[in-house]
Amino acid sequence: MKRTRILCWIFLSGTLFARYARSAETGWHADPVAGLLIALVVILAAAKLGSELFERLGQPAVLGELIAGVVLGNLVLVDPSWGFFEPLRMPEITEPWALEIDSLSRLGVLILLFEVGLESSLKMMVSVGASASLVAVLGVIAPFILGYGASAIFIKTLPAELAAVVPADFSLGYVHMFTGAVLCATSVGITARVFKDLGKLQTREAQIILGAAVIDDVLGLIVLALVSGIVGAAETGQAMDVAGLLGLIAKALGFLGGALLVGSYLVPRVMKQLARLRTAGVMLISAVLFAFLLSYLAIAAGLAGIVGAFAAGLLLEKVHFQDFREELTIEKLIKPIADLLTPLFFVLMGIQVHLETFTQWPVLGVAAALTLAAVIGKQVCGLGVLEKGVDRLTIGLGMIPRGEVGLIFAGIGRGLRVLDAAIFSAVVIMVIVTTLITPPVLKLALARSGKRQPGHGSPQSRPESVK
Amino acid sequence: MKRTRILCWIFLSGTLFARYARSAETGWHADPVAGLLIALVVILAAAKLGSELFERLGQPAVLGELIAGVVLGNLVLVDPSWGFFEPLRMPEITEPWALEIDSLSRLGVLILLFEVGLESSLKMMVSVGASASLVAVLGVIAPFILGYGASAIFIKTLPAELAAVVPADFSLGYVHMFTGAVLCATSVGITARVFKDLGKLQTREAQIILGAAVIDDVLGLIVLALVSGIVGAAETGQAMDVAGLLGLIAKALGFLGGALLVGSYLVPRVMKQLARLRTAGVMLISAVLFAFLLSYLAIAAGLAGIVGAFAAGLLLEKVHFQDFREELTIEKLIKPIADLLTPLFFVLMGIQVHLETFTQWPVLGVAAALTLAAVIGKQVCGLGVLEKGVDRLTIGLGMIPRGEVGLIFAGIGRGLRVLDAAIFSAVVIMVIVTTLITPPVLKLALARSGKRQPGHGSPQSRPESVK
Repeated sequence: MKRTRILCWIFLSGTLFARYARSAETGWHADPVAGLLIALVVILAAAKLGSELFERLGQPAVLGELIAGVVLGNLVLVDPSWGFFEPLRMPEITEPWALEIDSLSRLGVLILLFEVGLESSLKMMVSVGASASLVAVLGVIAPFILGYGASAIFIKTLPAELAAVVPADFSLGYVHMFTGAVLCATSVGITARVFKDLGKLQTREAQIILGAAVIDDVLGLIVLALVSGIVGAAETGQAMDVAGLLGLIAKALGFLGGALLVGSYLVPRVMKQLARLRTAGVMLISAVLFAFLLSYLAIAAGLAGIVGAFAAGLLLEKVHFQDFREELTIEKLIKPIADLLTPLFFVLMGIQVHLETFTQWPVLGVAAALTLAAVIGKQVCGLGVLEKGVDRLTIGLGMIPRGEVGLIFAGIGRGLRVLDAAIFSAVVIMVIVTTLITPPVLKLALARSGKRQPGHGSPQSRPESVK
Repeated sequence: MKRTRILCWIFLSGTLFARYARSAETGWHADPVAGLLIALVVILAAAKLGSELFERLGQPAVLGELIAGVVLGNLVLVDPSWGFFEPLRMPEITEPWALEIDSLSRLGVLILLFEVGLESSLKMMVSVGASASLVAVLGVIAPFILGYGASAIFIKTLPAELAAVVPADFSLGYVHMFTGAVLCATSVGITARVFKDLGKLQTREAQIILGAAVIDDVLGLIVLALVSGIVGAAETGQAMDVAGLLGLIAKALGFLGGALLVGSYLVPRVMKQLARLRTAGVMLISAVLFAFLLSYLAIAAGLAGIVGAFAAGLLLEKVHFQDFREELTIEKLIKPIADLLTPLFFVLMGIQVHLETFTQWPVLGVAAALTLAAVIGKQVCGLGVLEKGVDRLTIGLGMIPRGEVGLIFAGIGRGLRVLDAAIFSAVVIMVIVTTLITPPVLKLALARSGKRQPGHGSPQSRPESVK
């Protein structure tokens, strides 16, 4: 009953959108913002309905936003006249309101990675020590190899008409490489969220996973930069030689290192100056501008924008700066903006899933292979734990969810057109499954290790600081 | 020295923008968001520099944002290669990043009017009583008549080549009417801000002005709806008959009344339901969606979007709702979003000022006439004060600034193409002058009335609630 009502809401709001969008754009007050307004209302309402429903089912909110997007985008399968989100599903977006939604969703993912950077810290990365690093490195290498292999073996099972969708100018090796890269990702947000919901954030397992996830994030971003660079070189027709590859690695490390070194020198000094300014919202604007500027510089340096946004978050985290007039941390100031923009990214990801590809058994086969590679790949992580008394199964399971990071990687692959609709759908299924299975299996593993080692893994105080 | 350095910053950031925008859009990570990112960085940085400088000079921050925009937009006069903001200055915006900035600035002004609505209240409008109402009504009628007259007399002083810019399909009467409508506006934000900065928010004068400004806002919005409707009817070629005019008035009052009546019944009930939801940011998203939805419905009903946003603010203000997990009011949650989006609107307004029209003496003549009409028109307000012991000069002076509301009206006129570049420039000069002269003259008037009536107008406690 509840679900029926929610679906009715979505249908109703969609129909409203379809009927009135045109009238508002051609009326007397022909305001060009009308199309954007109603699209925002429908998308954000669907995002909140979806996340609410999935949270009630004990699932991550991000999954609900994704599914809400899948529903909105695929309403057209029910009735062709409900194809109002089709402009967002084209390979090349041209409609003004769709362009604006797309750009807002891109700003949303930058703000999200900025937030993740704010929650992470260089100090934490160092203190979690050898175990976290080894877990992180294994957690990148194993899934990459398994993902590449799964892609190489199972992509041949796709029938000719699907294989033809893969751009002719890409060698399939690039597709396997990108699929492997997508499997490297670990979602800090989802991992931490699950532990928090279970009240286990203070366990040794949680600390290693969180530390490893942070390092994993940086490693994953470097892998993404490398793979995107190689694919980009293929796209522009220039062969990617070893010097070029090393140059790209140097660029990736150079941007991160340079940003962190120059930033940790400059940021506190600049903040000191900014604290003297009187105008309203100067701290928030400065932080957002810093994130946008580093994102832009990362893009200009040939890296993904999210690398810059993450680096900006790491740097500002060190400062812990507050608006001195009101005791608000930058995290609290950025939260309303993130709450508003971030769901757009996930709903848009869902909207861009073409459900018709799910009806093809070969796609489901590739999805199953990728999911298996994703799960097994992260179980190898557990072997990286050097300390005793730590449950390796919990570590491995905790690293499974790919969440928003996997989707961001897949989205970049889609943008580069190295991942076609079929593989993208398979990757999204993998992300959905890995995100969906983690809470229940992690709960089971923690209960088991809690029984085996009393005092370990039992519910403890729930700190508010880690999300 | 200080100003030179700030100008150097603006030039430097502009040059950076010009040089790298293209490289980021054509590089390997050809991210379509790159253009938007750097435009946001340059515009917001300029906005903050401008507002900081003007606050230090004791002027309203909004003026600094406007001037920063004028500087950015007119850099092209210094060197044609600095014309990177030209896509924003075209009558028809087509460049993707410019479209996105334009839409974000439109969202910004909706959020601003939503905020003003949150700060205002139906209750306050009633309690300020007869004086405020009479002041508000006089403050709309007198400037409209004087503005119409000034436009009718001085528009003839514009030479033929400027008069030709006025769209041929509009009778000049529509231009006079729109100019009169622009002069009706009073800026709640600037008026309240000046009183707050002077520590006089609790004086009887301030209360009457604030109450009158709120009523004035609603009256001004109705005048704007009427005038835009008449102009829109002219544009679509249909004669605006009396029945149509009455229909428009009914529509304007009907939308506001209907929204307020239905809203005051529904909003508390819906909020009660929403408070049960668990997902993060649900209150913020609901409030923003409500503002966007009413804006959209206002547009669909033939009104301006800001009418809907203001109504949404008035309705939510009544609920005083808080996120029950964190003690944050909706005003605090919306503030970061407003801080980020609102400056875009004012900088964009500045960017769209073509300074070359300022070199034409006739334009300056029209600007002077409009400014005089604007100042005298609001002095008539003072006669509306029924109570004794209230300084009428202070009331009149406090109502002078047109600020963002005047700019919004002028922007709509420009959008409808009833205000051409020359008159738009004259209106912007009028807004700048009325906003600029208010703080010093109001200070003088308050000091004078404070001396005459000891205990009246003296600095008192500064409440935080009114901005």
